[in-house]
Amino acid sequence: MRVIMVGFGVVGQSFAKLLLSRSADLYSQYGIKPRIVACVDNSGSAVAPAGLDLERLLAAKKAKGTVGAYEKSGVGKKFAPIHIIENVDAEVVIECSPTNLTTGEPGTSHIISAMRTGKHVISVNKGPLALAFPSLIELANYNGVMFRFSGTVGGGTPILEFAKRCLKGDRIISFQGILNGTTNYILSKMEEEGISYEQAMADAKEKGYAEADPALDTDGYDAAAKLVIMANWVMGMKVTMKDVARTGISGVKASDVKKAAGRGNAIKLIAACDTRRLDVRPTEVSKKDPICVNGTLNAVTFSSEHSGQQTIIGRGAGGMETASAVLRDLIEIRDTVFER
Amino acid sequence: MRVIMVGFGVVGQSFAKLLLSRSADLYSQYGIKPRIVACVDNSGSAVAPAGLDLERLLAAKKAKGTVGAYEKSGVGKKFAPIHIIENVDAEVVIECSPTNLTTGEPGTSHIISAMRTGKHVISVNKGPLALAFPSLIELANYNGVMFRFSGTVGGGTPILEFAKRCLKGDRIISFQGILNGTTNYILSKMEEEGISYEQAMADAKEKGYAEADPALDTDGYDAAAKLVIMANWVMGMKVTMKDVARTGISGVKASDVKKAAGRGNAIKLIAACDTRRLDVRPTEVSKKDPICVNGTLNAVTFSSEHSGQQTIIGRGAGGMETASAVLRDLIEIRDTVFER
Repeated sequence: MRVIMVGFGVVGQSFAKLLLSRSADLYSQYGIKPRIVACVDNSGSAVAPAGLDLERLLAAKKAKGTVGAYEKSGVGKKFAPIHIIENVDAEVVIECSPTNLTTGEPGTSHIISAMRTGKHVISVNKGPLALAFPSLIELANYNGVMFRFSGTVGGGTPILEFAKRCLKGDRIISFQGILNGTTNYILSKMEEEGISYEQAMADAKEKGYAEADPALDTDGYDAAAKLVIMANWVMGMKVTMKDVARTGISGVKASDVKKAAGRGNAIKLIAACDTRRLDVRPTEVSKKDPICVNGTLNAVTFSSEHSGQQTIIGRGAGGMETASAVLRDLIEIRDTVFER
Repeated sequence: MRVIMVGFGVVGQSFAKLLLSRSADLYSQYGIKPRIVACVDNSGSAVAPAGLDLERLLAAKKAKGTVGAYEKSGVGKKFAPIHIIENVDAEVVIECSPTNLTTGEPGTSHIISAMRTGKHVISVNKGPLALAFPSLIELANYNGVMFRFSGTVGGGTPILEFAKRCLKGDRIISFQGILNGTTNYILSKMEEEGISYEQAMADAKEKGYAEADPALDTDGYDAAAKLVIMANWVMGMKVTMKDVARTGISGVKASDVKKAAGRGNAIKLIAACDTRRLDVRPTEVSKKDPICVNGTLNAVTFSSEHSGQQTIIGRGAGGMETASAVLRDLIEIRDTVFER
C-alpha cells in the first residue's frame, strides 16, 4: 500500500514512528505493509517509489527542519504538494498540513487533487472538513475513493467510529460533547482554583496547552469544526461552519463558575447537535453527568433511540494518539477496498 | 433471515417489539428482514416457518404467560428447546434463557446444539460464556458459525464492540470497569447518604434493582462473568470463572466509604484485567477518574498502547437496550455471512 504524506509535523512524524515500531505486527495481524512513497512539507519533499527509509526521513526532518534534506541534492529543491499528489503513484494520501478554519487551504486543494487522481484520502486536517464536508464527500463518491478523518475529532479517541459502527442498527437522535481540551483545561482550572479566566489562560499558555493565538480554541472555532464533522458524519446532516451558533469562553467569569459549583454544576464549553441545531457555548452541566470531565479530556454523550445514552471519554489530542487514528483509517481503507 | 428465539423474557419480548417497530427501516437501511420462525419458553413453544406474527406472540405471552398460547391447540403442548433448535430450519438462534453461573445450563446445551446444527448463535445469557467461553468459541469455529454476545456486557452500551472494532490497529494492554449496576447503585447510595450496606441494599430491593437472591450481584459473580467474557473476547485470553479472584461488596462499611470520600475517592466494585490477572473487588478510585460513575451506570476504561486511555459509560441493563445489542449482533452476522 503506497502512501503520500502531505505535511510532516507532530502527527506526521508520530505516524512514521508508529509504522517503524509496528511494521512486523501490522503485516502479520492485518496483512498491510504501508510504504510512504512521498513526503512533502513546507520547505521540501522526498520521493522514493520503493518506499522512503523512515528513520532517515525522521532524521532529515529533525536535522534540517524539512524532509527535503532526505537526499543531499534535495535541499532547496522543492516540488509543490499538488505536483507530488498528482504525479506520484500511490493508493492513499494522508493530509496533515496545518488546519486553517477560514480558508480551508492548502488542505482542501490537496484533498481535491488526491481524489481527482483516484487516491483515497485520510485527513487529519479539520479545515477542509469544517468548511466543505458535504462537497468533499460528494467528490469522494464521484471518484470512487474513500475519505476518512478519524483523527480530526478526539485525537486517538475513536469518537467517530464509535458512533458509526458501534451503534449500528440504532439511530442517534442527538449528541453533545466537550470537544476542545484547551478550553476544558481553562474552565477546570478556574473552578478548581477559583481563579479568573485570564489567570487560567496564562497557566494554559505556560503549560503549552494554548496556542500563540488562542482564539481558535477560546472562541469555540475548534469545537465548532469538530461539531460540523460529527454532524455530517454521524447524523447525515449537510452543514458547514456557518451553520454553527458559536459563543466562546472568554466571557465566563470566576463568579459564574463559583455560582454553578454551588449548585453542584460546572461550566463547560459544550458542543451540541440535534436534528435542528448546532451549538457551541458555555453551558452549566451537573458534576454527576459522565460528560463532566476535567483537564484536557474530551467527552461525548450520544443519545440513541433504543440503546439509551452512552458517553465516551479520552484525551482529545496528542501526536501518537492521533497517529493511531490515522493508522485505524488506513487499515479500514485496506479492509474495504483491497481484498487480502 | 430466519431466527429461533430460546427464552422469551424481558429481553426477548423487547427484541420482538424492536423488530415490530423497526421492520421497514431495517429493510431499507440494512437489507435485513428477520423472521422469528420459532419461539420457545419454559412452558411452551410456537413455530411458524413463514414467521410468527409478533403482535400475536407478544399478546399470547402476556395473556397466558407462555408463547405456547400462540395457537389455541398449543397450550400445554410442549416441545423441548433442543428439539426446536435441531428441527426447525433457521439461520440464527438467539439464546436468552435465564443465566445460571454455576451450571451454565440450560443455555450451554442450547448453544451447543445450535452450533452443531450449523446455526449462528447470539447469546444474551452470560452463563455459558462465563463457564465455557474458550470451548464455545472453538465449537463455533469448528462448525463454521458465528457466535456473538454483545448484550452480555453493558446491556445496550457497546463495550465489546468498542474494544474490538474501534481500537483496530492498536493493542489493548489492560482494562478495568464497573460492570454491575446493582452494586454500583448500593455503593453510590452508601456514599451519598452516609448509610450502611444493609440500608442501601434494602433501598435497592425496594427500587427493584436487586434480585430476590442478591448474592449474584453483591458477591461479584455477575461482574466476574462479564470480566471473563471481556478477557476472552478483547484480550484473547482463555479463561473462565474459576480464574477470577473475587471479593464482593458486603464487607464494605459506611466508615470505609466515608474515609475514602475524605480523600476525594469513592469505593467501587472494580473488575480489572491485564495480561496476568483477573480481579473483582471493592477498590478506592478517584472521583476525578472518568470511571467513577454513580447510580446504576456501568463504565469501562481501556488502556491501549498507542491511543491512550478511553472510557465508555452507559446504562448496563434494560430490556430495550439489551435488545438493541441483539439487533446489532444480528446485523453483523448478516453483513459478515450473507452477501446482500
